[in-house]
Amino acid sequence: MSKKAIILLSGGLDSATSLAIAKKEKYDCYALSVNYHQRHNYELVAAKNIANFFSVKDLKEVEIDLSWLQNSALTNKSLNIPENPSTGIPVTYVPARNTIMMSLAMAWAESIDCTNIFIGVNAVDYSGYPDCREEYIKSFQNMANLATKKAVEGDLIKIHTPLINLSKKEIIQKGVELGVDYSLTVSCYQVTSDGLACGKCDSCRLRKAGFKDAGLPDPTRYL
Amino acid sequence: MSKKAIILLSGGLDSATSLAIAKKEKYDCYALSVNYHQRHNYELVAAKNIANFFSVKDLKEVEIDLSWLQNSALTNKSLNIPENPSTGIPVTYVPARNTIMMSLAMAWAESIDCTNIFIGVNAVDYSGYPDCREEYIKSFQNMANLATKKAVEGDLIKIHTPLINLSKKEIIQKGVELGVDYSLTVSCYQVTSDGLACGKCDSCRLRKAGFKDAGLPDPTRYL
Repeated sequence: MSKKAIILLSGGLDSATSLAIAKKEKYDCYALSVNYHQRHNYELVAAKNIANFFSVKDLKEVEIDLSWLQNSALTNKSLNIPENPSTGIPVTYVPARNTIMMSLAMAWAESIDCTNIFIGVNAVDYSGYPDCREEYIKSFQNMANLATKKAVEGDLIKIHTPLINLSKKEIIQKGVELGVDYSLTVSCYQVTSDGLACGKCDSCRLRKAGFKDAGLPDPTRYL
Repeated sequence: MSKKAIILLSGGLDSATSLAIAKKEKYDCYALSVNYHQRHNYELVAAKNIANFFSVKDLKEVEIDLSWLQNSALTNKSLNIPENPSTGIPVTYVPARNTIMMSLAMAWAESIDCTNIFIGVNAVDYSGYPDCREEYIKSFQNMANLATKKAVEGDLIKIHTPLINLSKKEIIQKGVELGVDYSLTVSCYQVTSDGLACGKCDSCRLRKAGFKDAGLPDPTRYL
Protein backbone atom coordinates (compact mmCIF):
# COMPACT_ATOMS: atom_id res chain seq x y z
CA MET A 1 0.00 0.00 0.00
CA SER A 2 1.21 3.47 -0.78
CA LYS A 3 2.19 5.69 2.10
CA LYS A 4 0.13 8.83 2.46
CA ALA A 5 1.13 12.04 4.20
CA ILE A 6 -0.61 15.30 4.96
CA ILE A 7 1.76 18.21 4.43
CA LEU A 8 0.99 21.53 6.08
CA LEU A 9 1.77 23.96 3.27
CA SER A 10 1.81 27.64 4.10
CA GLY A 11 3.46 28.78 0.91
CA GLY A 12 6.66 29.65 2.73
CA LEU A 13 10.20 28.39 2.39
CA ASP A 14 10.06 25.88 5.24
CA SER A 15 6.82 24.14 4.31
CA ALA A 16 7.91 23.87 0.66
CA THR A 17 11.10 22.15 1.83
CA SER A 18 9.11 19.87 4.10
CA LEU A 19 6.95 18.88 1.10
CA ALA A 20 10.07 18.19 -0.98
CA ILE A 21 11.39 15.92 1.78
CA ALA A 22 8.09 14.01 2.01
CA LYS A 23 8.14 13.51 -1.78
CA LYS A 24 11.74 12.30 -1.59
CA GLU A 25 10.64 9.81 1.07
CA LYS A 26 8.05 8.48 -1.42
CA TYR A 27 4.93 9.65 0.33
CA ASP A 28 1.74 10.34 -1.59
CA CYS A 29 1.39 13.98 -0.56
CA TYR A 30 -1.84 15.71 0.42
CA ALA A 31 -1.21 19.39 0.97
CA LEU A 32 -3.22 21.43 3.45
CA SER A 33 -3.32 25.22 3.43
CA VAL A 34 -5.32 27.33 5.81
CA ASN A 35 -6.90 30.60 4.78
CA TYR A 36 -7.26 32.21 8.18
CA HIS A 37 -7.74 35.64 6.64
CA GLN A 38 -4.10 36.28 7.25
CA ARG A 39 -2.67 39.67 6.39
CA HIS A 40 -0.12 38.05 4.07
CA ASN A 41 -2.69 36.10 2.09
CA TYR A 42 -0.53 35.99 -1.04
CA GLU A 43 1.04 32.99 0.68
CA LEU A 44 -2.06 31.01 -0.34
CA VAL A 45 -1.25 31.72 -4.01
CA ALA A 46 2.30 30.56 -3.32
CA ALA A 47 0.98 27.37 -1.67
CA LYS A 48 -1.03 26.57 -4.80
CA ASN A 49 1.98 27.13 -7.04
CA ILE A 50 4.20 24.93 -4.86
CA ALA A 51 1.55 22.20 -4.67
CA ASN A 52 1.36 22.21 -8.48
CA PHE A 53 5.14 22.24 -8.81
CA PHE A 54 5.35 19.08 -6.70
CA SER A 55 2.26 17.45 -8.26
CA VAL A 56 0.60 16.70 -4.94
CA LYS A 57 -2.31 14.23 -4.90
CA ASP A 58 -4.61 16.89 -3.53
CA LEU A 59 -4.44 20.43 -2.16
CA LYS A 60 -7.09 21.43 0.32
CA GLU A 61 -7.48 25.05 1.33
CA VAL A 62 -9.54 25.27 4.50
CA GLU A 63 -11.01 28.64 5.41
CA ILE A 64 -11.40 29.82 9.01
CA ASP A 65 -11.79 33.51 9.60
CA LEU A 66 -9.52 34.30 12.55
CA SER A 67 -9.58 38.05 12.04
CA TRP A 68 -11.20 38.32 15.49
CA LEU A 69 -7.80 37.52 17.01
CA GLN A 70 -7.05 41.13 17.79
CA ASN A 71 -3.71 40.54 19.48
CA SER A 72 -1.73 39.31 16.46
CA ALA A 73 -0.38 41.52 13.71
CA LEU A 74 -1.03 38.73 11.22
CA THR A 75 -4.79 38.76 11.91
CA ASN A 76 -5.25 42.38 12.99
CA LYS A 77 -4.17 44.67 10.18
CA SER A 78 -4.23 47.73 12.42
CA LEU A 79 -1.14 46.45 14.24
CA ASN A 80 2.20 47.17 12.59
CA ILE A 81 4.60 44.47 11.48
CA PRO A 82 7.90 45.09 13.31
CA GLU A 83 10.73 45.95 10.93
CA ASN A 84 13.56 45.74 13.45
CA PRO A 85 14.86 42.84 15.52
CA SER A 86 13.37 42.64 19.01
CA THR A 87 13.51 40.31 21.99
CA GLY A 88 10.72 38.00 23.17
CA ILE A 89 7.86 36.51 21.18
CA PRO A 90 6.89 39.11 18.56
CA VAL A 91 3.43 40.50 17.80
CA THR A 92 3.30 38.34 14.66
CA TYR A 93 2.65 35.34 16.92
CA VAL A 94 -0.85 33.97 16.18
CA PRO A 95 -2.46 32.25 19.18
CA ALA A 96 -2.88 28.50 18.70
CA ARG A 97 -2.16 28.70 14.97
CA ASN A 98 -0.18 25.50 14.65
CA THR A 99 -2.61 23.68 16.94
CA ILE A 100 -5.56 24.71 14.79
CA MET A 101 -3.76 23.72 11.59
CA MET A 102 -2.51 20.41 12.91
CA SER A 103 -5.94 19.55 14.26
CA LEU A 104 -7.32 20.04 10.74
CA ALA A 105 -4.49 17.87 9.41
CA MET A 106 -5.43 15.18 11.98
CA ALA A 107 -9.03 15.26 10.80
CA TRP A 108 -8.12 15.00 7.14
CA ALA A 109 -5.54 12.30 7.83
CA GLU A 110 -8.00 10.11 9.67
CA SER A 111 -10.61 10.50 6.96
CA ILE A 112 -8.24 9.24 4.23
CA ASP A 113 -6.52 6.49 6.25
CA CYS A 114 -3.29 8.39 6.65
CA THR A 115 -1.12 8.42 9.76
CA ASN A 116 1.64 10.83 8.71
CA ILE A 117 1.63 14.60 9.06
CA PHE A 118 4.54 16.80 7.98
CA ILE A 119 5.05 20.26 9.41
CA GLY A 120 7.97 22.52 8.53
CA VAL A 121 8.57 23.98 11.98
CA ASN A 122 12.08 24.69 13.09
CA ALA A 123 13.42 26.08 16.30
CA VAL A 124 16.81 27.39 15.23
CA ASP A 125 16.35 30.42 12.97
CA TYR A 126 12.78 31.19 14.01
CA SER A 127 10.67 33.89 15.58
CA GLY A 128 10.42 32.24 18.99
CA TYR A 129 6.86 30.99 18.55
CA PRO A 130 6.27 28.35 21.26
CA ASP A 131 4.30 26.12 18.87
CA CYS A 132 7.38 25.59 16.71
CA ARG A 133 9.37 23.80 19.41
CA GLU A 134 10.03 20.06 19.50
CA GLU A 135 8.50 19.60 22.96
CA TYR A 136 5.25 21.12 21.72
CA ILE A 137 5.16 18.87 18.65
CA LYS A 138 5.80 15.76 20.76
CA SER A 139 3.04 16.76 23.11
CA PHE A 140 0.68 17.34 20.19
CA GLN A 141 1.49 13.88 18.88
CA ASN A 142 0.71 12.34 22.28
CA MET A 143 -2.60 14.17 22.40
CA ALA A 144 -3.49 13.18 18.82
CA ASN A 145 -2.89 9.55 19.65
CA LEU A 146 -5.53 9.73 22.38
CA ALA A 147 -7.97 11.71 20.26
CA THR A 148 -8.80 9.71 17.18
CA LYS A 149 -10.62 6.48 16.48
CA LYS A 150 -7.81 5.20 14.27
CA ALA A 151 -5.16 5.88 16.90
CA VAL A 152 -7.19 4.19 19.61
CA GLU A 153 -7.50 1.20 17.29
CA GLY A 154 -3.72 1.07 16.92
CA ASP A 155 -2.88 3.20 13.86
CA LEU A 156 -0.77 5.80 15.58
CA ILE A 157 -0.23 9.25 14.12
CA LYS A 158 3.31 10.40 13.48
CA ILE A 159 4.12 14.10 13.23
CA HIS A 160 7.20 14.55 11.04
CA THR A 161 9.33 17.63 11.62
CA PRO A 162 12.22 17.17 9.19
CA LEU A 163 13.48 20.73 9.69
CA ILE A 164 13.26 20.98 13.45
CA ASN A 165 16.99 21.13 14.12
CA LEU A 166 18.15 22.76 10.89
CA SER A 167 19.32 26.32 10.48
CA LYS A 168 17.74 28.40 7.69
CA LYS A 169 20.95 27.94 5.71
CA GLU A 170 20.72 24.16 6.04
CA ILE A 171 17.02 24.16 5.14
CA ILE A 172 17.75 26.09 1.94
CA GLN A 173 20.70 23.84 1.06
CA LYS A 174 18.54 20.76 1.59
CA GLY A 175 15.69 22.23 -0.49
CA VAL A 176 17.94 23.23 -3.38
CA GLU A 177 19.40 19.71 -3.38
CA LEU A 178 15.82 18.38 -3.67
CA GLY A 179 14.91 20.75 -6.49
CA VAL A 180 12.73 23.24 -4.62
CA ASP A 181 12.12 26.37 -6.68
CA TYR A 182 12.24 28.94 -3.90
CA SER A 183 11.10 31.68 -6.25
CA LEU A 184 7.63 30.15 -5.84
CA THR A 185 7.68 30.58 -2.07
CA VAL A 186 6.88 33.65 -0.04
CA SER A 187 7.87 34.32 3.57
CA CYS A 188 7.14 38.02 4.07
CA TYR A 189 4.60 38.99 6.73
CA GLN A 190 3.49 41.98 4.68
CA VAL A 191 3.88 40.66 1.17
CA THR A 192 2.00 42.72 -1.42
CA SER A 193 -0.92 41.36 -3.41
CA ASP A 194 1.57 40.89 -6.27
CA GLY A 195 3.88 38.77 -4.15
CA LEU A 196 6.55 41.37 -3.43
CA ALA A 197 8.37 40.99 -0.10
CA CYS A 198 9.23 43.91 2.20
CA GLY A 199 12.73 42.67 2.99
CA LYS A 200 12.47 44.15 6.47
CA CYS A 201 10.21 42.00 8.66
CA ASP A 202 11.47 39.20 10.90
CA SER A 203 10.52 36.56 8.36
CA CYS A 204 12.24 38.39 5.48
CA ARG A 205 15.37 38.91 7.60
CA LEU A 206 15.64 35.20 8.47
CA ARG A 207 15.10 34.23 4.84
CA LYS A 208 17.57 36.73 3.44
CA ALA A 209 20.25 35.67 5.92
CA GLY A 210 19.59 32.01 5.06
CA PHE A 211 20.33 32.52 1.36
CA LYS A 212 23.36 34.64 2.19
CA ASP A 213 24.76 32.05 4.64
CA ALA A 214 24.12 29.27 2.11
CA GLY A 215 26.04 31.25 -0.51
CA LEU A 216 23.11 30.98 -2.87
CA PRO A 217 21.30 33.65 -4.89
CA ASP A 218 18.11 34.88 -3.17
CA PRO A 219 15.26 34.51 -5.68
CA THR A 220 12.84 36.56 -3.56
CA ARG A 221 11.11 39.41 -5.37
CA TYR A 222 11.56 42.41 -3.10
CA LEU A 223 9.68 45.69 -3.18
CA MET B 1 -10.05 41.04 38.36
CA SER B 2 -13.00 39.06 37.03
CA LYS B 3 -12.44 35.46 36.03
CA LYS B 4 -13.09 34.74 32.38
CA ALA B 5 -13.92 31.38 30.82
CA ILE B 6 -14.46 30.16 27.29
CA ILE B 7 -17.37 27.71 27.18
CA LEU B 8 -17.66 25.33 24.24
CA LEU B 9 -21.37 25.50 23.51
CA SER B 10 -22.77 23.03 21.02
CA GLY B 11 -26.42 23.65 21.81
CA GLY B 12 -26.78 20.25 23.44
CA LEU B 13 -27.69 19.20 26.94
CA ASP B 14 -24.14 18.69 28.19
CA SER B 15 -22.64 21.96 27.04
CA ALA B 16 -25.64 23.92 28.40
CA THR B 17 -25.05 22.30 31.79
CA SER B 18 -21.35 23.05 31.59
CA LEU B 19 -22.21 26.72 30.93
CA ALA B 20 -24.58 26.75 33.91
CA ILE B 21 -21.81 25.38 36.12
CA ALA B 22 -19.33 28.01 34.90
CA LYS B 23 -21.90 30.75 35.65
CA LYS B 24 -22.49 29.28 39.11
CA GLU B 25 -18.71 29.40 39.67
CA LYS B 26 -18.84 33.14 38.87
CA TYR B 27 -16.96 33.09 35.61
CA ASP B 28 -17.56 35.73 32.97
CA CYS B 29 -18.63 33.38 30.19
CA TYR B 30 -17.59 33.62 26.55
CA ALA B 31 -19.45 31.00 24.54
CA LEU B 32 -17.92 29.41 21.44
CA SER B 33 -19.99 27.52 18.87
CA VAL B 34 -18.58 25.95 15.74
CA ASN B 35 -20.53 25.82 12.51
CA TYR B 36 -18.73 22.94 10.84
CA HIS B 37 -21.55 22.45 8.35
CA GLN B 38 -22.87 19.72 10.60
CA ARG B 39 -25.89 17.77 9.51
CA HIS B 40 -27.73 18.75 12.70
CA ASN B 41 -27.14 22.45 12.28
CA TYR B 42 -30.23 23.40 14.26
CA GLU B 43 -27.93 22.97 17.26
CA LEU B 44 -26.43 26.35 16.34
CA VAL B 45 -29.84 27.97 16.85
CA ALA B 46 -30.07 26.18 20.18
CA ALA B 47 -26.60 27.43 21.15
CA LYS B 48 -27.70 31.02 20.49
CA ASN B 49 -30.84 30.56 22.58
CA ILE B 50 -28.87 29.05 25.48
CA ALA B 51 -26.23 31.78 25.27
CA ASN B 52 -29.00 34.40 25.51
CA PHE B 53 -30.71 32.53 28.34
CA PHE B 54 -27.50 32.65 30.36
CA SER B 55 -26.58 36.21 29.30
CA VAL B 56 -23.06 35.30 28.25
CA LYS B 57 -20.57 38.15 27.73
CA ASP B 58 -20.12 37.12 24.11
CA LEU B 59 -21.09 34.30 21.76
CA LYS B 60 -18.76 33.60 18.89
CA GLU B 61 -19.84 31.28 16.09
CA VAL B 62 -16.82 30.20 14.10
CA GLU B 63 -17.41 28.66 10.68
CA ILE B 64 -15.22 25.88 9.27
CA ASP B 65 -16.64 23.80 6.47
CA LEU B 66 -15.74 20.20 7.35
CA SER B 67 -18.15 18.63 4.86
CA TRP B 68 -15.10 17.12 3.15
CA LEU B 69 -14.84 14.66 6.05
CA GLN B 70 -16.52 11.88 4.15
CA ASN B 71 -16.24 9.24 6.87
CA SER B 72 -18.58 10.79 9.44
CA ALA B 73 -22.36 10.73 9.26
CA LEU B 74 -22.43 14.18 10.86
CA THR B 75 -20.48 15.75 7.99
CA ASN B 76 -21.48 13.42 5.13
CA LYS B 77 -25.23 13.50 4.70
CA SER B 78 -25.22 10.49 2.40
CA LEU B 79 -24.36 8.26 5.38
CA ASN B 80 -27.28 7.18 7.55
CA ILE B 81 -27.53 7.98 11.25
CA PRO B 82 -27.80 4.65 13.11
CA GLU B 83 -31.12 4.24 14.88
CA ASN B 84 -30.25 1.13 16.88
CA PRO B 85 -27.61 0.55 19.55
CA SER B 86 -24.32 -0.85 18.24
CA THR B 87 -20.88 -1.67 19.58
CA GLY B 88 -17.68 0.24 18.90
CA ILE B 89 -17.24 3.88 17.96
CA PRO B 90 -20.23 4.82 15.79
CA VAL B 91 -20.22 6.48 12.37
CA THR B 92 -21.33 9.74 14.01
CA TYR B 93 -17.77 10.15 15.29
CA VAL B 94 -16.20 13.23 13.67
CA PRO B 95 -12.40 13.04 13.30
CA ALA B 96 -10.57 15.51 15.52
CA ARG B 97 -13.73 17.48 16.29
CA ASN B 98 -12.98 18.27 19.91
CA THR B 99 -9.35 19.01 19.08
CA ILE B 100 -10.38 21.52 16.42
CA MET B 101 -12.91 23.16 18.73
CA MET B 102 -10.60 23.30 21.72
CA SER B 103 -7.80 24.73 19.60
CA LEU B 104 -10.15 27.56 18.59
CA ALA B 105 -11.05 28.00 22.27
CA MET B 106 -7.32 28.19 23.09
CA ALA B 107 -6.84 30.90 20.48
CA TRP B 108 -9.78 32.97 21.69
CA ALA B 109 -8.79 32.48 25.33
CA GLU B 110 -5.28 33.75 24.75
CA SER B 111 -6.52 36.76 22.82
CA ILE B 112 -8.76 37.92 25.69
CA ASP B 113 -6.42 37.08 28.59
CA CYS B 114 -8.39 34.07 29.71
CA THR B 115 -6.94 30.80 30.99
CA ASN B 116 -10.11 28.75 31.56
CA ILE B 117 -11.90 26.59 29.02
CA PHE B 118 -15.03 24.58 29.84
CA ILE B 119 -16.04 21.56 27.78
CA GLY B 120 -19.05 19.39 28.55
CA VAL B 121 -17.53 16.03 27.70
CA ASN B 122 -18.46 13.00 29.73
CA ALA B 123 -17.34 9.44 29.49
CA VAL B 124 -20.16 7.63 31.25
CA ASP B 125 -23.35 7.81 29.13
CA TYR B 126 -21.61 8.66 25.86
CA SER B 127 -21.07 7.39 22.35
CA GLY B 128 -17.54 6.12 22.92
CA TYR B 129 -15.79 8.99 21.15
CA PRO B 130 -12.12 8.90 22.18
CA ASP B 131 -11.92 12.70 22.42
CA CYS B 132 -14.44 12.72 25.28
CA ARG B 133 -12.21 10.79 27.69
CA GLU B 134 -10.37 12.29 30.63
CA GLU B 135 -6.96 11.06 29.45
CA TYR B 136 -7.44 12.87 26.15
CA ILE B 137 -8.45 16.11 27.88
CA LYS B 138 -5.44 15.96 30.22
CA SER B 139 -3.17 15.41 27.26
CA PHE B 140 -4.74 18.33 25.39
CA GLN B 141 -4.14 20.55 28.41
CA ASN B 142 -0.47 19.51 28.54
CA MET B 143 -0.11 20.29 24.84
CA ALA B 144 -1.89 23.65 25.19
CA ASN B 145 0.49 24.65 27.94
CA LEU B 146 3.44 24.19 25.59
CA ALA B 147 1.71 25.91 22.67
CA THR B 148 0.83 29.42 23.69
CA LYS B 149 2.77 32.54 24.54
CA LYS B 150 0.73 33.12 27.68
CA ALA B 151 1.30 29.59 28.96
CA VAL B 152 5.03 29.78 28.29
CA GLU B 153 5.04 33.03 30.27
CA GLY B 154 3.38 31.29 33.21
CA ASP B 155 -0.37 31.75 32.74
CA LEU B 156 -1.33 28.11 32.40
CA ILE B 157 -4.50 27.00 30.67
CA LYS B 158 -6.97 24.90 32.61
CA ILE B 159 -9.49 22.73 30.78
CA HIS B 160 -12.55 22.27 32.99
CA THR B 161 -14.63 19.13 32.49
CA PRO B 162 -17.29 19.41 35.19
CA LEU B 163 -19.37 16.54 33.73
CA ILE B 164 -16.59 14.05 33.03
CA ASN B 165 -17.64 11.49 35.63
CA LEU B 166 -21.38 12.16 35.74
CA SER B 167 -24.10 9.95 34.29
CA LYS B 168 -26.68 11.58 32.01
CA LYS B 169 -29.15 11.39 34.89
CA GLU B 170 -26.75 13.24 37.19
CA ILE B 171 -25.99 15.85 34.52
CA ILE B 172 -29.70 16.57 34.11
CA GLN B 173 -30.26 16.72 37.87
CA LYS B 174 -27.35 19.12 38.25
CA GLY B 175 -28.60 21.28 35.37
CA VAL B 176 -32.17 21.46 36.67
CA GLU B 177 -30.81 22.48 40.07
CA LEU B 178 -28.91 25.31 38.31
CA GLY B 179 -31.97 26.45 36.35
CA VAL B 180 -31.08 25.12 32.89
CA ASP B 181 -34.09 25.20 30.58
CA TYR B 182 -33.47 21.97 28.69
CA SER B 183 -36.27 22.74 26.25
CA LEU B 184 -33.78 25.15 24.66
CA THR B 185 -31.23 22.40 24.05
CA VAL B 186 -31.09 19.90 21.21
CA SER B 187 -29.14 16.64 21.15
CA CYS B 188 -30.53 14.80 18.11
CA TYR B 189 -28.08 13.91 15.31
CA GLN B 190 -30.80 14.34 12.73
CA VAL B 191 -32.85 17.14 14.24
CA THR B 192 -35.19 18.82 11.73
CA SER B 193 -34.79 22.42 10.66
CA ASP B 194 -37.64 23.20 13.09
CA GLY B 195 -35.78 21.62 16.01
CA LEU B 196 -37.70 18.34 16.20
CA ALA B 197 -35.73 15.34 17.47
CA CYS B 198 -35.94 11.85 15.96
CA GLY B 199 -36.03 10.07 19.31
CA LYS B 200 -34.13 7.14 17.80
CA CYS B 201 -30.46 8.05 17.32
CA ASP B 202 -27.76 7.32 19.88
CA SER B 203 -27.84 10.86 21.18
CA CYS B 204 -31.66 10.89 21.54
CA ARG B 205 -31.57 7.54 23.31
CA LEU B 206 -28.99 8.71 25.87
CA ARG B 207 -30.95 11.90 26.47
CA LYS B 208 -34.33 10.19 26.80
CA ALA B 209 -32.94 7.63 29.25
CA GLY B 210 -31.34 10.45 31.26
CA PHE B 211 -34.64 12.24 31.84
CA LYS B 212 -36.36 8.94 32.62
CA ASP B 213 -33.67 7.90 35.12
CA ALA B 214 -33.78 11.34 36.71
CA GLY B 215 -37.56 11.02 37.11
CA LEU B 216 -38.02 14.34 35.32
CA PRO B 217 -40.29 15.28 32.41
CA ASP B 218 -38.46 15.22 29.06
CA PRO B 219 -38.99 18.65 27.43
CA THR B 220 -37.61 17.49 24.05
CA ARG B 221 -39.84 18.17 21.06
CA TYR B 222 -39.95 14.88 19.19
CA LEU B 223 -41.11 14.26 15.63
